[in-house]
Amino acid sequence: MTDFVRSGARAADQLRPVRITRGFTIHAEGSVLIEFGQTRVLCTASVEEKVPPHKRGSGEGWVTAEYGMLPRATHTRSDREAARGKQSGRTQEIQRLIGRSMRAVFDLAALGERTIHLDCDVLQADGGTRTAAITGAFVAAQDAVNKLLDEGRIAASPIRGHVAAISVGIVQGTPLLDLEYTEDSACDTDMNVVMTGAGHFVEVQGTAEGAAFSREEMNQLLALAEKGITELIGLQTQALAG
Amino acid sequence: MTDFVRSGARAADQLRPVRITRGFTIHAEGSVLIEFGQTRVLCTASVEEKVPPHKRGSGEGWVTAEYGMLPRATHTRSDREAARGKQSGRTQEIQRLIGRSMRAVFDLAALGERTIHLDCDVLQADGGTRTAAITGAFVAAQDAVNKLLDEGRIAASPIRGHVAAISVGIVQGTPLLDLEYTEDSACDTDMNVVMTGAGHFVEVQGTAEGAAFSREEMNQLLALAEKGITELIGLQTQALAG
Amino acid sequence: MTDFVRSGARAADQLRPVRITRGFTIHAEGSVLIEFGQTRVLCTASVEEKVPPHKRGSGEGWVTAEYGMLPRATHTRSDREAARGKQSGRTQEIQRLIGRSMRAVFDLAALGERTIHLDCDVLQADGGTRTAAITGAFVAAQDAVNKLLDEGRIAASPIRGHVAAISVGIVQGTPLLDLEYTEDSACDTDMNVVMTGAGHFVEVQGTAEGAAFSREEMNQLLALAEKGITELIGLQTQALAG
Amino acid sequence: MTDFVRSGARAADQLRPVRITRGFTIHAEGSVLIEFGQTRVLCTASVEEKVPPHKRGSGEGWVTAEYGMLPRATHTRSDREAARGKQSGRTQEIQRLIGRSMRAVFDLAALGERTIHLDCDVLQADGGTRTAAITGAFVAAQDAVNKLLDEGRIAASPIRGHVAAISVGIVQGTPLLDLEYTEDSACDTDMNVVMTGAGHFVEVQGTAEGAAFSREEMNQLLALAEKGITELIGLQTQALAG
Amino acid sequence: MTDFVRSGARAADQLRPVRITRGFTIHAEGSVLIEFGQTRVLCTASVEEKVPPHKRGSGEGWVTAEYGMLPRATHTRSDREAARGKQSGRTQEIQRLIGRSMRAVFDLAALGERTIHLDCDVLQADGGTRTAAITGAFVAAQDAVNKLLDEGRIAASPIRGHVAAISVGIVQGTPLLDLEYTEDSACDTDMNVVMTGAGHFVEVQGTAEGAAFSREEMNQLLALAEKGITELIGLQTQALAG
Amino acid sequence: MTDFVRSGARAADQLRPVRITRGFTIHAEGSVLIEFGQTRVLCTASVEEKVPPHKRGSGEGWVTAEYGMLPRATHTRSDREAARGKQSGRTQEIQRLIGRSMRAVFDLAALGERTIHLDCDVLQADGGTRTAAITGAFVAAQDAVNKLLDEGRIAASPIRGHVAAISVGIVQGTPLLDLEYTEDSACDTDMNVVMTGAGHFVEVQGTAEGAAFSREEMNQLLALAEKGITELIGLQTQALAG
Repeated sequence: MTDFVRSGARAADQLRPVRITRGFTIHAEGSVLIEFGQTRVLCTASVEEKVPPHKRGSGEGWVTAEYGMLPRATHTRSDREAARGKQSGRTQEIQRLIGRSMRAVFDLAALGERTIHLDCDVLQADGGTRTAAITGAFVAAQDAVNKLLDEGRIAASPIRGHVAAISVGIVQGTPLLDLEYTEDSACDTDMNVVMTGAGHFVEVQGTAEGAAFSREEMNQLLALAEKGITELIGLQTQALAG
Repeated sequence: MTDFVRSGARAADQLRPVRITRGFTIHAEGSVLIEFGQTRVLCTASVEEKVPPHKRGSGEGWVTAEYGMLPRATHTRSDREAARGKQSGRTQEIQRLIGRSMRAVFDLAALGERTIHLDCDVLQADGGTRTAAITGAFVAAQDAVNKLLDEGRIAASPIRGHVAAISVGIVQGTPLLDLEYTEDSACDTDMNVVMTGAGHFVEVQGTAEGAAFSREEMNQLLALAEKGITELIGLQTQALAG
Repeated sequence: MTDFVRSGARAADQLRPVRITRGFTIHAEGSVLIEFGQTRVLCTASVEEKVPPHKRGSGEGWVTAEYGMLPRATHTRSDREAARGKQSGRTQEIQRLIGRSMRAVFDLAALGERTIHLDCDVLQADGGTRTAAITGAFVAAQDAVNKLLDEGRIAASPIRGHVAAISVGIVQGTPLLDLEYTEDSACDTDMNVVMTGAGHFVEVQGTAEGAAFSREEMNQLLALAEKGITELIGLQTQALAG
Repeated sequence: MTDFVRSGARAADQLRPVRITRGFTIHAEGSVLIEFGQTRVLCTASVEEKVPPHKRGSGEGWVTAEYGMLPRATHTRSDREAARGKQSGRTQEIQRLIGRSMRAVFDLAALGERTIHLDCDVLQADGGTRTAAITGAFVAAQDAVNKLLDEGRIAASPIRGHVAAISVGIVQGTPLLDLEYTEDSACDTDMNVVMTGAGHFVEVQGTAEGAAFSREEMNQLLALAEKGITELIGLQTQALAG
Repeated sequence: MTDFVRSGARAADQLRPVRITRGFTIHAEGSVLIEFGQTRVLCTASVEEKVPPHKRGSGEGWVTAEYGMLPRATHTRSDREAARGKQSGRTQEIQRLIGRSMRAVFDLAALGERTIHLDCDVLQADGGTRTAAITGAFVAAQDAVNKLLDEGRIAASPIRGHVAAISVGIVQGTPLLDLEYTEDSACDTDMNVVMTGAGHFVEVQGTAEGAAFSREEMNQLLALAEKGITELIGLQTQALAG
Repeated sequence: MTDFVRSGARAADQLRPVRITRGFTIHAEGSVLIEFGQTRVLCTASVEEKVPPHKRGSGEGWVTAEYGMLPRATHTRSDREAARGKQSGRTQEIQRLIGRSMRAVFDLAALGERTIHLDCDVLQADGGTRTAAITGAFVAAQDAVNKLLDEGRIAASPIRGHVAAISVGIVQGTPLLDLEYTEDSACDTDMNVVMTGAGHFVEVQGTAEGAAFSREEMNQLLALAEKGITELIGLQTQALAG
């Protein structure tokens, strides 16, 4: 089988160009535009001095996420969820994933009784919106935490390490890193992987869209994801140093 | 009474810096980022080859608008309407206003049985989001119409002229053009005016927030609005020529 | 152009017969049936000894309105909003307008921490339901305030003056006062004007349904509205004296 | 036990004054204001030339009802169901009861493939709103049917007989006819009875609010209801002859 | 007229085989599977140490019920109410009926400020689900109360007597006890009767589906219901003794 | 570190007792009660002779799933989703997972234009409800397909192989198969694995609840899951042979 040829002669194990723009909007405590090629997600971090009911009086904080797509972020216009009056199952799945991923690197006790809301809104979609959202939300959360530290509202950072995410998949028999939309539509297996800066897994969500995948294929995909996430964490570090 | 002093030494009858960026996103038939100072609204125009029930079989098309705000477009985070499960009265009011304003310059018969959806999403809010949305949506609609013309899907443009909008208000006794957020919060009277390129009114929505306003004040406000809209139409023309 | 001929040989600047019936129902603190010709709106004012969250602890009260139409108030039956599970954008727009109009003449501090709910329900519609609602709601609110005064629950009236509303429009080139349904459907421009007893504007909402309108036409419409509202305020005064 | 004394020296087996006003509003095919003492319900009948899905193509029509209460029809204001976004269980129960009661006297085949919508809206409540609604809706339905006959849209009446309803209950041991609100609140047993002109039962809904009731008490209540409904049917006949 | 022949040669006044299985699931304070022939309803009683707002601070408890049907409890699959986003009118009617029936035998003051939630979920439907639910919910409630007594959380039982329910109806002229689905679909009159152990009525809900019913028929139906409920109360007693 | 001791002296790599009861209810084309220890899920398969819009005219069928939990399936009562008016994000995630898992072994073209609805309702929960649901739904789907084959409605089975699922996790450092509730609550990593009869992966969803997990741990968990699923597929085969 000949290997699948990617757009722009991208190698199978190559990320799309990633751009991380901090301070993209002015009001939020953290505001990051993250781009994975043509995919663009605006991630804002908002600090609120209260917690949801299940954390009240616990001395611990909370980190939560919401996800949305502008109606014309996609090739054909999708209905506006606010107009339809409910969020789709896909939206809820993604925002729960982002929230869990962020909490994996947060020490909620060190955050104190406050909430960090991460809003990830897709301005333009070309595959990988949830992994871009996680990778960008981490930077926005870091900016918000830095603000809390600068203002003396917390004494030490509640962030225990980096977290980033990437998609991998098998398209026409070839394992690929960082799927763009046309690859995602064509793939047999699609996996989203979230890892920490320490190289451990936070989430692995693999789905066979067509043929089920073997243990061997899974190993290849995880290796690709590890490579990609290591690079993304480097890019987060650069952006935060910038 | 001393006149109110505006931020950046802006004159009472001066617009904020306006920027119109066409082609801001890639999928939509028209995609415009419009900025009135710190207010930034992404306006996309999407063409759909069908019409709502009340236009079916009429030979006429439809132009409609939806409006949204990212949760952290504002100083403090607002609830996401998709998560709350309904659009606020304010949102509905604004999107109805944008839709009517666009239809005021559209010949729906010339459009043919298709719909143009205008999605106006506020990325950053600093007052005047609905007037920026109308002004930007016109440019996005023009781009979508040009695409239809280029592809030979319509023979002649259904757009009969420009339409643009601006807010005016009285703050501490001074009539001001193009209110920014702090001015809007402080104003006694707030008026949104929508006008055509021919200098006629499409919508006038004046509201006394504090003291009711006199006929004389109304005349002053309308004059300011006329001046501002004339300038905006010039900027639309420039952008479309660009 | 020949002038448009109105039903019943009504003059262009003439109101329909207006009837204001106080005490139309027995339970509400204020209960007014207002009729503008065939348009009939039941306006009740209900006093509640608490305020919404944004006013709690402020020492100030609140005045708010809701609007509804019985399903067969109209020529053809409309869906019941309670059955559909949501209020239309039009309904929300109107009830927000009524609320703002009432608050324009209320001193919320003098009202104390209580709420006046104005419910405006259209029993029969023939154009001008929102302006009849505002004009009637004022009378109902006055009755409720009088009851509070009589019972010694407030020491002085929080009402600072009258407020009333009328629609004006241009039909076949003729500016008309107080549009009935057939006129409203045919009009090029439709304007709802809310004014105080002192002759100042509270709200001006003009919409070009067909052709945009000129500054000159706007002036004519505002003059007509001033005339009509002056008469309505006289009728409110009579009704309250009755 | 001393018998319960009713307001206005009403006898235990006496209806409140009943008033049936036909043509109360102008647009509906049938429009009836029915008053049982202080209870006032506006019942409109609207004819629509289509049927719900389960009747499509059956050659049969449909008769259905909706029920609502104005927010201040009651002693203290209730939430508006349209604003809350759903109808209460009580509302749904009542409108289902009205619909079944009307269908009990309708020959749906003779109606042809059209729907009669009965809208029963309570303007003022003082007990017995559902029974007033049924009794009034019958008259409105008859007016709508007469209109269809007059216009030659149907050849023969689909109405097979009268239907009317009344409440009965046991208050402090005394069986009473046609409960008003204070009686309804105090009663141990509350029963709503719907009967045809032929003296048969369409619905019997008895509920023990406090103590359960015996077979003997049930017999007394049914006898009272029969008496009241016979009178109501006489009043319907008079009103329709008027 | 020949009498209607029932499946399995059941007599007109005969209940279907009834089975009451206590402790059907492990978590609830009371958990009862009740079977009326092929109808199977799982009734659980859950104790919660708080009361709804209208009982707060009253010293009294509350007893309430919810009802549901699994989508394929029925011959053809029905939509899942959770997916549709609302409970049908029928569901609400039934759960209100179950709640009232239970409260008829509860002394809410003796229960103390706690709530007993009765969840009645139909696993398999073959007519009579609401009457099976009431009959089974009583047993579940009794088990929950026994648990409260055993744990010393209440000193005396708040249950004042048994309550059970059965359906009766007239099918092809024959009055029948305990209708199964095919009988229910074919019946002219359908009546649900709820009675106490003392032989008094709590609820009587009779509906003429086809022809209205006479007083004589009603008497026959009530007599059948009395017989059936007496037997059911015996079966409840046996089950609770088991 | 001492290994975690499981209830009932269960080995780390041991499934709970599994019971699969076919024909649990009578109406559905397939009806299976599956038990993983104390977890009990009723899975029904319903055949409908139409497809959702995205499949209309495609010649292909559809397989979809819905998931629910009875309110008192859990230790403390949860709100009924039908009463709250929406399904939680968790519910939607699970039902999407079940649907994808079933479709992984279905040849939708061979099914023809019909839908199989799988309803998985948890009667009693003790961990692993989603994996039990998938494992049971397969058996119900097979029964429904057998019925279609028996009735000659399809010529060949559209099912291409078995599918089953199990949870695995790391509790106190010990990798465990088939977590029960107390283990699930205590675990650091929780993974749900869905595999085919051919030993390939359909879904792998691993989540670090506490500490992130290493590649080595992931390998251990996948091996455990493979073992468990092989056993489950054996049990499915036995049940279907029974």
